[in-house]
Amino acid sequence: MVHYLGLDLGGTNIKAGVVDELARIVSKGSVPAEAAEGPERVVYNMVRVGREAVEKAALTMAEITAIGIGSPGPLSVERGVIHNSPNLPGFVNFPLRDRVAASLDAKAVLHNDANAAAFGEYWSGAGREMQHMVMFTLGTGIGGGVVSDGVLLRGCGDNAGELGHIIVHPEGRQCGCGQNGCLEAYASATHTVRRAEEAIAEGTSSTLSSLDSISAKRVAEHAQKGDALAIAVLDGAAEALALACVSLRHVVEPQLVVLGGGMAAAGELILAPTRKHYQRHMWKLQDSHPLRIKLASLGSDAGFIGAAGLAQQIFPE
Amino acid sequence: MVHYLGLDLGGTNIKAGVVDELARIVSKGSVPAEAAEGPERVVYNMVRVGREAVEKAALTMAEITAIGIGSPGPLSVERGVIHNSPNLPGFVNFPLRDRVAASLDAKAVLHNDANAAAFGEYWSGAGREMQHMVMFTLGTGIGGGVVSDGVLLRGCGDNAGELGHIIVHPEGRQCGCGQNGCLEAYASATHTVRRAEEAIAEGTSSTLSSLDSISAKRVAEHAQKGDALAIAVLDGAAEALALACVSLRHVVEPQLVVLGGGMAAAGELILAPTRKHYQRHMWKLQDSHPLRIKLASLGSDAGFIGAAGLAQQIFPE
Repeated sequence: MVHYLGLDLGGTNIKAGVVDELARIVSKGSVPAEAAEGPERVVYNMVRVGREAVEKAALTMAEITAIGIGSPGPLSVERGVIHNSPNLPGFVNFPLRDRVAASLDAKAVLHNDANAAAFGEYWSGAGREMQHMVMFTLGTGIGGGVVSDGVLLRGCGDNAGELGHIIVHPEGRQCGCGQNGCLEAYASATHTVRRAEEAIAEGTSSTLSSLDSISAKRVAEHAQKGDALAIAVLDGAAEALALACVSLRHVVEPQLVVLGGGMAAAGELILAPTRKHYQRHMWKLQDSHPLRIKLASLGSDAGFIGAAGLAQQIFPE
Repeated sequence: MVHYLGLDLGGTNIKAGVVDELARIVSKGSVPAEAAEGPERVVYNMVRVGREAVEKAALTMAEITAIGIGSPGPLSVERGVIHNSPNLPGFVNFPLRDRVAASLDAKAVLHNDANAAAFGEYWSGAGREMQHMVMFTLGTGIGGGVVSDGVLLRGCGDNAGELGHIIVHPEGRQCGCGQNGCLEAYASATHTVRRAEEAIAEGTSSTLSSLDSISAKRVAEHAQKGDALAIAVLDGAAEALALACVSLRHVVEPQLVVLGGGMAAAGELILAPTRKHYQRHMWKLQDSHPLRIKLASLGSDAGFIGAAGLAQQIFPE
């Protein structure tokens, strides 16, 4: 059996896992990233948690065919370099791939973290056995990835799959990126909270107004209990997602859209209205391959699994 | 030198051309499709114009490595079958690829016509030397194609690149497909004319109102002469295009968007406002690969060139 080491670098934690060629997790672990300490400390932590995962799998690094790394971008897959990242202080043109590869004495590939998570869901999660899949990572912001005919689309500068910045309402809310009407300005956790807060400030009554602070999780809980504002806020997020799904369906024609990230923890509360709005906005022409919309199935393991899978694509043995 | 025969089946004409492996046109020709006569007549005409192009190239069919066919869809690339097509009466589950291949005694591939045209512009037109390109075919309707890392995206059912049905204004105009706010409902020739007619009916003054009938060409001519309504109509088409470009930029990150089809004959009158609106709607974050937007360069030859190029990808010699 051939084994890969997947590393998923986040602003808060680093996750590591040994994954075999059939996408089965053999071992896994997690450590704080300590990103504020700068890139040297982050590399040290990545190497440490990677080694620990390999030991836990009862393997040696010599038995690891290659390492896959998922990291916040922007980055260069070709060069294995982080250009700079708002969540990773000091990472300016930092050769993360080669630093990790040298320390662990193995070949490595570097990909955008949301792209890696999408590839993970494709390889062994909700998209297993699908060749055409799109994943949305609905977190503080919105990222994603597009797999077409089994290939993760990278784009000309490794920025494909920035699905949060599809424009769904051109005259709509301003996004943190500066554009108006981005999907992210409706369906990210940040904007879900903000939309609830704005409605309450405008006088809409809601059980949320009694809370000290609102979170996306609270919005989902109050929607579950029937709060009309919370339901309306999730419905707006779902409609924005559905509009993006219709456009994606026409551009890349996936079989499946997967919803992952923190907002997807709302489960049916986000899934059902997304499906409903998709049916409403999508054409009614005969469709031999009707799009499926599902929740992600790998949780926070998707990143390291996908990174390992991308390593396997480049270094099949 | 290896040669391919490209055939581009339209509702009105069939274009044929012999193209060498370096994408140079060796010969070309065109005949009426006579689509109303049904599929047998269409096949007869395709075979005839194909043979003529090969003879004109001073070649025999034995010297043609493979045939590429572009056709209106929906169709199956895998099976080489036209499912049914509003513009091709009688083509119901019709095995166009194998019928043409058998008559000409050569291997053949079948692709959607707009996809083929996009591949043509990628292979030897405006997108030559680009690996990531999107093309819009702005005609009666809007089609297109997406080339990512040199690969034409097909999608799960060979319907990728239906770019006219990206939703740009969710509360907007109804499209012929039944969706609201499609790009096609703003930037196709049909809707460009309709938007001008509607504005005139609502009392907007325009030099177009003196015409017996308005066409997209006339709209461009009157815009050129400074007619405010004609300019505004083209500007609306350009803004819709720009919104689609922003979303495409984030989804597949092309280096280049190519505008082709009849509406692109307006040249700078459509190109300049599309670029302007793209700059306005696109984020201002640092962009190491700024998107270029250009006019197509192959005209109506793009279809058979691209079909030949797709044949070359499958049958490299």
